[in-house]
Amino acid sequence: MALVPWFLSSTSQAQNAPMGRSLEKQFDSYLSPADLRARLKRLSAHPHHVGSPYDKENAEFILSQYKTWGFDARIEEFSALFPTPKTRLLEMTAPVKYTAVLKEPPLKEDSTSNKVVEQLATYNAYSIDGDVTGDLIYVNYGIPSDYDELERMGIDVQGKIVITRYGGSWRGIKPKVAAEHGAIGCLIYSDPKDDGFYVGDVYPKGAWRNEFGVQRGSVAEMPVYPGDPSTPFIGATPGVKRLPLNEIKVLTKIPVLPISYHDALPLLQSLTGPVAPDHWKGALPVTYHVGPGPAKVHLKLAFSWDIKPIYDVIAMIQGSTYPDQWIIRGNHHDAWVNGAEDPLSGQVATMEEGKALGELVKSGWKPKRTIVYCAWDGEEPGLIGSTEWVETHADELRQKAVAYINSDSNERGFVYMDGSQTLQHFINDVARDVLDPEKNISVWERARAVRLLESSPGEKKDIRSATDLKIGALGSGSDFTPFLQHIGIASLNIGYGGESEGGGYHSIYDSFDHFMRFGDPTFAYGVALAQTGGHAVLRLADADILPFDFSDFAAVVAGYLGEIKDLTQNMREETLELNRELEENVFTEVANPAKTYRAPKAKDPVPYLNFAPLENAVSTLRKSAEEYQNAKRELEESGRKLAGDRPMRLNEIVFRTERALTNPEGLKGRPWFIHEIYAPGFYTGYSVKTLPSVREAIEQRQWEEADQQVIVVADTLEAYSGEIRKATAILRSASK
Amino acid sequence: MALVPWFLSSTSQAQNAPMGRSLEKQFDSYLSPADLRARLKRLSAHPHHVGSPYDKENAEFILSQYKTWGFDARIEEFSALFPTPKTRLLEMTAPVKYTAVLKEPPLKEDSTSNKVVEQLATYNAYSIDGDVTGDLIYVNYGIPSDYDELERMGIDVQGKIVITRYGGSWRGIKPKVAAEHGAIGCLIYSDPKDDGFYVGDVYPKGAWRNEFGVQRGSVAEMPVYPGDPSTPFIGATPGVKRLPLNEIKVLTKIPVLPISYHDALPLLQSLTGPVAPDHWKGALPVTYHVGPGPAKVHLKLAFSWDIKPIYDVIAMIQGSTYPDQWIIRGNHHDAWVNGAEDPLSGQVATMEEGKALGELVKSGWKPKRTIVYCAWDGEEPGLIGSTEWVETHADELRQKAVAYINSDSNERGFVYMDGSQTLQHFINDVARDVLDPEKNISVWERARAVRLLESSPGEKKDIRSATDLKIGALGSGSDFTPFLQHIGIASLNIGYGGESEGGGYHSIYDSFDHFMRFGDPTFAYGVALAQTGGHAVLRLADADILPFDFSDFAAVVAGYLGEIKDLTQNMREETLELNRELEENVFTEVANPAKTYRAPKAKDPVPYLNFAPLENAVSTLRKSAEEYQNAKRELEESGRKLAGDRPMRLNEIVFRTERALTNPEGLKGRPWFIHEIYAPGFYTGYSVKTLPSVREAIEQRQWEEADQQVIVVADTLEAYSGEIRKATAILRSASK
Repeated sequence: MALVPWFLSSTSQAQNAPMGRSLEKQFDSYLSPADLRARLKRLSAHPHHVGSPYDKENAEFILSQYKTWGFDARIEEFSALFPTPKTRLLEMTAPVKYTAVLKEPPLKEDSTSNKVVEQLATYNAYSIDGDVTGDLIYVNYGIPSDYDELERMGIDVQGKIVITRYGGSWRGIKPKVAAEHGAIGCLIYSDPKDDGFYVGDVYPKGAWRNEFGVQRGSVAEMPVYPGDPSTPFIGATPGVKRLPLNEIKVLTKIPVLPISYHDALPLLQSLTGPVAPDHWKGALPVTYHVGPGPAKVHLKLAFSWDIKPIYDVIAMIQGSTYPDQWIIRGNHHDAWVNGAEDPLSGQVATMEEGKALGELVKSGWKPKRTIVYCAWDGEEPGLIGSTEWVETHADELRQKAVAYINSDSNERGFVYMDGSQTLQHFINDVARDVLDPEKNISVWERARAVRLLESSPGEKKDIRSATDLKIGALGSGSDFTPFLQHIGIASLNIGYGGESEGGGYHSIYDSFDHFMRFGDPTFAYGVALAQTGGHAVLRLADADILPFDFSDFAAVVAGYLGEIKDLTQNMREETLELNRELEENVFTEVANPAKTYRAPKAKDPVPYLNFAPLENAVSTLRKSAEEYQNAKRELEESGRKLAGDRPMRLNEIVFRTERALTNPEGLKGRPWFIHEIYAPGFYTGYSVKTLPSVREAIEQRQWEEADQQVIVVADTLEAYSGEIRKATAILRSASK
Repeated sequence: MALVPWFLSSTSQAQNAPMGRSLEKQFDSYLSPADLRARLKRLSAHPHHVGSPYDKENAEFILSQYKTWGFDARIEEFSALFPTPKTRLLEMTAPVKYTAVLKEPPLKEDSTSNKVVEQLATYNAYSIDGDVTGDLIYVNYGIPSDYDELERMGIDVQGKIVITRYGGSWRGIKPKVAAEHGAIGCLIYSDPKDDGFYVGDVYPKGAWRNEFGVQRGSVAEMPVYPGDPSTPFIGATPGVKRLPLNEIKVLTKIPVLPISYHDALPLLQSLTGPVAPDHWKGALPVTYHVGPGPAKVHLKLAFSWDIKPIYDVIAMIQGSTYPDQWIIRGNHHDAWVNGAEDPLSGQVATMEEGKALGELVKSGWKPKRTIVYCAWDGEEPGLIGSTEWVETHADELRQKAVAYINSDSNERGFVYMDGSQTLQHFINDVARDVLDPEKNISVWERARAVRLLESSPGEKKDIRSATDLKIGALGSGSDFTPFLQHIGIASLNIGYGGESEGGGYHSIYDSFDHFMRFGDPTFAYGVALAQTGGHAVLRLADADILPFDFSDFAAVVAGYLGEIKDLTQNMREETLELNRELEENVFTEVANPAKTYRAPKAKDPVPYLNFAPLENAVSTLRKSAEEYQNAKRELEESGRKLAGDRPMRLNEIVFRTERALTNPEGLKGRPWFIHEIYAPGFYTGYSVKTLPSVREAIEQRQWEEADQQVIVVADTLEAYSGEIRKATAILRSASK
C-alpha cells in the first residue's frame, strides 16, 4: 500500500514523531483498495434512500463491520418526517400540449439503473402539495439578483409559475425567493450548460447528465434549521412531540418539481417575451426567452407525508487517558438512489479508516482519547441523522466533543480541506504527509500547485509566502452543520476531487458502474481519503496538547472584518453612483425604446457604521492568540510537562473555545444557528456567510441591526479571547 | 425634420456661429427620411457585388443623383482581381457521409431573397483553389492563443483541416494562422452562440442568422496591403502592370470556405478527442470536441480568377476660397449580396448629405474649401475602390486632403466616432449639436450616458471630468484605411448603432425587408448620420482655422506609450512567473493523468527596453501642442486676423501634420502601411494596434526590433512636433 516516503516527513509534528509517524505507517498498511471496491459494490447494489429496505440493510451491514473491527457500535434510530411522491403531473396546456416524462430510463450499460420499483421518483423533498396552473416565466437561477433584472424588464412573477435552472445557489433558495415574489409554483431543471452535454459527453457514452437525468434533492429551508422538519431543536426520538404539518415553517410555500432538460426544452421553446440576458442563457438549442407565457403549465403534486426511520451507526473506541474527549468522524450512508459516489465513495473510505483503527487496537494500540465513527442516515433530505443525533446528545457533545471531521463524496484529484481555522495548521500538516497516488509528491504539495496555477498574481504571492494553505470556512451541505453551527464544535470537511467526471448527482445514474468508469476506479483516492481522515483522527486522539492554532483563526477573523468593511464601503459607493446616475437620467437616456425597461429605484444612502467594537475585539483576539501560541511553543521547547490534571484541563479549555463563538440567542430569524463566525447564507444556502449576523444585516441594508450585531459579535469574540487566556495561564503554570 | 433646438447650442464653436449654425439648420431642413427610404429600396433591389450588372447600375444611379444635385461628378473606373466561385464542394467522408448544403434558401418573408441567379454563392474571396482531404480539428476562433491551447492538449494541426468559428478576430486571420501551423484547409462557420439563435430569434421570425445563413467575406491578407491584390501600391488603372497570381502574397496559403451552422453541426458532432475548453464552446446542441477526427472532410474549391470593373463615384463641389483644400467624405456602395444594411444604410445617408449640400449651393452658399463625396465600389473584397483611388491620386491627396470622413453601415442607437484624435474635440462638438431621434437630448449626451453606464468606477470618473468623449483609434475594416494609413490623412469613421438587431451580415438576408423590420425603419438614425456627417463637412469646409487639436492627440499618444510600457512590464512579470512555475513543476504536478497535457515552454526573459527616446518625443509633442493651442486661443480672443496667404499656409501646415506621422519605409514586413501611430493588427485584422511598429515587436518578443522602432517612432514624433511649431509661428505672426 501507499506508504508515506521518508522525504515527506514534516518537522512541524515533532511532538508526535517518531511514534506517531510509525503508527501512521502501520495504519496505512491496513488500507486496501480491494476492500473499498467490494464495500462500494455491496452498499450501492440497490437504491437506499431514507425509509427504503436497503437503507436499513446498509446500516446493519455498516454496524456489523464496525463490530467486526472491534468497535463498540450501535444503531441509534430516530424517526423523521420524510415525504415521498404520490402524484407528479407537469403538463404544458398552451400554446401546445406537452406532458413531462419525469422518468429516468434504465440503461443497459448501467446494471443498477433498472431497479425501477425500488427507486424514489424524481422530486424535491419538502415541497408542499399543490395543484397550480399559470403562465410560465424563466427566471434563470432564481436568486434575488435575477428578480432585480426581471424588474428592469418590467416583468412580475406574481401569480405565475417560474422555471429556474439548477446552479447559482443551493436549490432550496429558488422556491423560497420565487414565493417571496409571489410565484405560485416552481420548476427546477438541469440545464446542459451547467450539467449536461455542454460540459461533456453524456451518460452512458460519457459521464455527464443525459437529457432524462434529474437532480433530486431537498428544498426544506435548511438555512433556518436542518434535520427533521417536524422536530426543530430536539432529537426525533420515540415519543417526541412533533409540529403538525401546517406549523412547519421550513416546508416550501409553493409546489416545486425538478425536471430533466428533455422536459424543460418544450417549455422553454414555448416562451416569448424579452430575450433572456446573456448570462441567463443555457445550452439548449433555443433562443432563451423570459416570458411570461404563452407557455401555460399545470403542476400537480401530492406527497405521502410519512414518518420514516433514520438509522445512524455510531461506533466508538474508548479513549485510554481522556475517555471524555471525543474525536468524531462522520460520513453519511443514505442516498437519493444508489449513491455510489454520493455518499458511498466517501463512506467506504471512512469505513476503511475504521477497519484500520480496529487493526491498530488489535495490535495493542490504545488511543488516548475516545474515537467516534458515525455513518449518518437521512443526510440527503436535510442532514437528519446527524442533526437529530446532535440535538439528542447536545449536552454531552458540548462537554466532550473535541472536533468533528466530516467527509462526503470522494473522487480523483486534489485534496480539499475546509473548516474551523483553529485547525488550519493541523490539517495542513496532515496533508503534507499523505502521498498523492498519481504524482510523486504529497497531496498538500499538489493542492498548493493547483491553487498557484489558478490564482491571481497577488494571491500567488500570498500562497508562496505562507507556510500553510488557507482553509475555507464552512457553510452547509453536509453533516458538519449541526456540530459546528448548532453546538460550536471545531469541524473540518475533507475530501478529494477535481479530476473525475460527474453528472450522476442525485440521479439513478450515480451508480457503481458510473463510478468505476468516471469516479475513482482504482480507489487510490479513496485510500488517500482514508489516510487523510485516519491520520487526522490518530493525531487528534493522541496529541498531548490539542493542535488548535488561535493565531491562524485570529488572522482569518481579521480578514473577515476587513471584507465586511470593504463590503460596506463598496455598497456606499455603488449607492452614491446609482443615485447619481438616476439624477443624471442615464438609465432612461440609454434605454432602447423598442424594449420595455424600468430604471432601478434609488437606494437609501449607506451610513457609516461603528466597527470599533469589532476592531477592538479582533485586536484583543490577535493578542490573546499570540500569547497562547508563544506560551505553547515555549513549553514545548522547554521540554517541561504539565503536571496532574493540567493537561486535561488545558485541552478541555482549548477544544471548548469553539463553544465560546456561539451565541445562545442564535442568528436573527433562525435561532437554531448559533455560531457567530460561520453560517450558511440565508439567500445562498450551502455557501458560507462569515460573521453572518453582521454581514447579512449589511447585505440586507438593515443598518441599525448591523450596528447592534457588531456589538454582539464583538462581545462573543471578547469572551472567546477570555477562554484563550485561561488556556495560556495553564500553559504558563508549567514553567513555574 | 429634426432641427437642433436652441438649448443644445454649444459655445465652443463660437467662431462659426451664428452663420454656421443657421447654415446647419438650413442643411437639416433638406433631409428627408422618405428620400432615404426610396433610395435604399432602389439600391438594394438586386444583388450588387463587384462585377455584377446591378453594381454598375447603382454606380450610375448614384452618379446621376450627384449630378442632379449640382455636383461635378464622374465615375472613376478601375479594374481589379476578383475571384468568384466555380466549384465549391465540402463533404464529410468519415465516420458518416455528409455533403454540405452551402446554400441560403429564399424566404417568402423576404422579397429579394429569391434572386438566386444574381446572387454570389457563399465563399471567401481570395481563398486559393484547392482540393484537400484530411482529418478535421476544431480550433475555436483560430487565433494564435487558440493554437497555444491546442499545444497544451498535445494536438497538432499539421496536415489537417481546421474548422474555426467566426469571431475573435477578422476572418482573414483564421486561414493565415492555420496555414502557419501547417493546416491544409480551413472552414469558417457562424456559431449560433456568436451569430444565431443564441443571440435572438432567427430570421425570418426574428433578426438573427438562421441555420443556413453564411457570412461571405474577403480573406486576402489585408493587414499586409488592401486594395486590388494584383496591383499593390499602384492604382489599377487601364494598362496597369499586374502581379501574376503566383506572385500575389496576400492570397491565402490554403483553401478556405465559410459555412452555415447547419453545415457545421454534423461535422462537429463527428469529432472526438478532448472536450473543448469552456471558452471554445458555442451554442450548438453538441459536446464540443477538438478532434482530430474521426471526422474526415474533403474540401474542393476552384475560382474564376477574373479582372472585374470597379466603379467609384466621385462628386465635387469646388471650394471658393481654398479650392486646393479638400474635405473628403465617403461610404461604399458595393455589397456581398443586396446589402441593405451593409453598406446602403450608410450610403443613403451620405447621399442625403450630398442632396442637402446641393440645395445649399442652389440657395447661394459656397464652401470655402472643396468638398468631395465618394461612393466606393469594391470595399467588400478589400477596400478596392478607395485604395485604388487613393493610390492613383496619392500625390494630389498628399497636397490637398484636409480630412477624410468615412461611414459604412448605420443603425439605430448611439453615435460612434473614431479616428485621428486631432479631430476629437471637433467631432465631439459636431455630436453635441445633433438631436437624438429617440430622446430629447443630443446624440453626444446619449453616447456619454451609455459609456457612463457601461464603464468601471475609474472610467466613470474620467468620463465625468472630461470635456469630450474619447474617440477610439482606427484599425481597419472600412475605406478610411488607405487615406489614414497609406497617405496620412486625418480621418474619422462615424455612424450609429447598438439598438438594432443584426444577423444578416454578408448574407442574402441583409435585405430591405430585414432592414425595415430590424434596422432603422423610420430612417431617423439615417437622418442623424446625415446631420453628423453633413455638419462635420460644413464646419471643416468653412473653418477659418482648421479645428485640429494637437493637445488631444498628444495626450492620447502619451497614453499609448504608457500602455506599451505596461505591456512590457506585464510580459516581464508573466514570463518570470511562467518560468518560475515551470521550475516548480506546477504544471506537471497539477495535470490530470487521464488527459494528454503538455506543459508550456519556458520563455526568454523580457529585457528592459529603452523608452527614453519616446518619452522625450512625447514630452516635446505635449509642449509643442500646448504652445499651438495657446497661440490659437490667443489669436481668436484677440480678434486679430491672419493677413495675406497666412491663413492658407497655416491651414496647409495644420492638415498636413498627419503626413508627418508617416514613415516612408512603412511597417516591418508590410511597407504599404506607413502610419506610425495607427495600423490594423498583423494578428487581429480589423482591430487597431497603436504605435504598431513598437507594440507588435514587443508582442512578438522581438526586443532588438522594439528598441530600434522606439527610435524611429520618436524621430517621427519629433518631426511632427516641428510641423506644429511651424504652425504656431504663423499664428504668432498675427500678433506682431
